[in-house]
Amino acid sequence: MKAHIIILPKKAVLDPQGKTVRGALEHLGYTGITEVRVGKFIEVELAEGDRETARRQLDEACHRFLSNPVIEDYHLEILD
Amino acid sequence: MKAHIIILPKKAVLDPQGKTVRGALEHLGYTGITEVRVGKFIEVELAEGDRETARRQLDEACHRFLSNPVIEDYHLEILD
Repeated sequence: MKAHIIILPKKAVLDPQGKTVRGALEHLGYTGITEVRVGKFIEVELAEGDRETARRQLDEACHRFLSNPVIEDYHLEILD
Repeated sequence: MKAHIIILPKKAVLDPQGKTVRGALEHLGYTGITEVRVGKFIEVELAEGDRETARRQLDEACHRFLSNPVIEDYHLEILD
């Protein structure tokens, strides 16, 4: 079983890394880019077990320490 | 139009950040986690335009400077 976690800065929060990437892409001639946000991607491999327990545990871990809920949003997906 | 880019360290490359997250999760009592890899997630908002051109441009950007092809793999997805 696998889980994918995406953590991105909230829309209302400044994202200097995203701004830098956007500027760099423009500078290199890539046009048509209106916004870039840079966050984290976490891939977790899990021993086989109950899917719902895994989701609950990882959701708690995301909230408690993998993300900063004040400035970041996370999205958790459990895959087979 | 949107693009999602996932950049992860290659399987053969040591991932100290992933190892740290795995250790921390275990320490906090989350069991059944066999491996963690930590990478980057980049969300790009694009002006409407040709989908294939956008894919080609972003693929080149991923290869040239968003990822380090020696130690990282990337996955690019163009969404509506």
